[in-house]
Amino acid sequence: MSELKEISCNKSFDGYQKVFSHESKVLKCLMKFGIFLPKNEDSQKCPVIYWLSGLNCTEQNFVTKAGAQQHANKYNVIVVAPDTSPRGCNIPGEDDSYDFGSGAGFYIDATLDPWKKHYNMYSYITSELPAIINDNFPADPERQSIMGHSMGGHGALICYLKNPGKYRCVSAFAPICNPTQCDWGKKAFAGYLGGDASSIPDSWHDYDATSLVKKFDGSPVDILIDQGLSDEFLKKGQLLPDNFVQACKEAQVPVILNKREGYDHSYYYIATFLGEHFAHHAKFLG
Amino acid sequence: MSELKEISCNKSFDGYQKVFSHESKVLKCLMKFGIFLPKNEDSQKCPVIYWLSGLNCTEQNFVTKAGAQQHANKYNVIVVAPDTSPRGCNIPGEDDSYDFGSGAGFYIDATLDPWKKHYNMYSYITSELPAIINDNFPADPERQSIMGHSMGGHGALICYLKNPGKYRCVSAFAPICNPTQCDWGKKAFAGYLGGDASSIPDSWHDYDATSLVKKFDGSPVDILIDQGLSDEFLKKGQLLPDNFVQACKEAQVPVILNKREGYDHSYYYIATFLGEHFAHHAKFLG
Repeated sequence: MSELKEISCNKSFDGYQKVFSHESKVLKCLMKFGIFLPKNEDSQKCPVIYWLSGLNCTEQNFVTKAGAQQHANKYNVIVVAPDTSPRGCNIPGEDDSYDFGSGAGFYIDATLDPWKKHYNMYSYITSELPAIINDNFPADPERQSIMGHSMGGHGALICYLKNPGKYRCVSAFAPICNPTQCDWGKKAFAGYLGGDASSIPDSWHDYDATSLVKKFDGSPVDILIDQGLSDEFLKKGQLLPDNFVQACKEAQVPVILNKREGYDHSYYYIATFLGEHFAHHAKFLG
Repeated sequence: MSELKEISCNKSFDGYQKVFSHESKVLKCLMKFGIFLPKNEDSQKCPVIYWLSGLNCTEQNFVTKAGAQQHANKYNVIVVAPDTSPRGCNIPGEDDSYDFGSGAGFYIDATLDPWKKHYNMYSYITSELPAIINDNFPADPERQSIMGHSMGGHGALICYLKNPGKYRCVSAFAPICNPTQCDWGKKAFAGYLGGDASSIPDSWHDYDATSLVKKFDGSPVDILIDQGLSDEFLKKGQLLPDNFVQACKEAQVPVILNKREGYDHSYYYIATFLGEHFAHHAKFLG
């Protein structure tokens, strides 16, 4: 197990908001994550919510802008917010686009050179990071859930759908619901996995929530999707929540889609409704 | 009246968080301010809280990190968060220090060249900005109050103490309470006002909350001071809240000093207790 280095520690809502760095084995680079540790008066093991951020974010966006600490302390839950991609890997072009490479790992395991050596965010989020959290903090491995925003909403949905029983529930703000059908997803999947959208390869469907839900065989827990109706990326067809909801209905997987009049894609929107999501997760995390 | 230009608009907690720019007459430069407009269902005039930020901040720090919108909407109050200094004035050295010049206007009116042409934040905060707010938004000029952080806590205190009746109440997080006695204040006052700390000029006392409270003749409203006990700047003697509280006692001005175990100087600390401050202000804003 690589060593954790504490980068920052700030008391917040009776608990502590910390940031750590560590050498990731599956990503082969230095990674940072934010973690909120609630006051936890009884010193018992706490449930853990994993938060996956969107394009161009680091761990800082959620930690500083979402106002999550008040909810996390209220429900006595640990919240882990990792970075969104490997960093500083010296891959040609890694910093050229906001929607590919650094800040845009898409929570998948790349299979194409030169990305596959480092860009394994799916394994990092579902295996390496939880092992680190469970080994180093008072986290209950039996009570974890996942949520995210935009690219991270896509990440949360696929991590949940591909691992029945691993997460007690999932929710997402403005998730990229059907990446094989939108420009962001097509660019990322073509670059990391190969192939193209004219004949979608199985590897793409394997990371597409709308494809995955059709064969989901986990226990029927409400999937909570939140969507601002003034979201510019909704209008541009990058998010496609209706495709996901339709697939859920066909597969008889329960889903809640909350549409929010006037709200956009920003953390102002997330902060407004994050308390509702924590309440939803708390029901399942116990 | 100069024209306002809307820079951004995000729906947040049922209201709108906006940022505007305008040409300031007293600062002779382009300035930005954040403003939260609550839902205000009855379309009545709302009370206004002015928030003054600390060293090195722009209007963005409070707007993105404090979580103020939830409280502002709850109490149906407008919140105005101006920038902390003139910007881009081409004064030699204006960007050289974090604690003098850009980002460090100290909410005073400078009297020394080359600063006095632009650095008139006291007049901006107490006169020009409220006039703009009252003319352009549904703000009730009879119901305003002021709060701030660090350098902005100093600003809030002096604006309140120098203008009995103008603000219904005041509160401050980790304010610079006695700038004539700390390094930050001595540097700023010497640079903007002239003189030095070996023989403190009257002009310095005129912008020092601990000096001002001794001759305060306004109505006795509790002044609320909040202070984290793990604040590095408290330890370094930059804040000196005990000097202010002692002066309040001698002048029989009611003051509340809330000491917060383990909290530092950051927005994590501010966000934790901001709801208490809004509740305090709401009592006086009606």
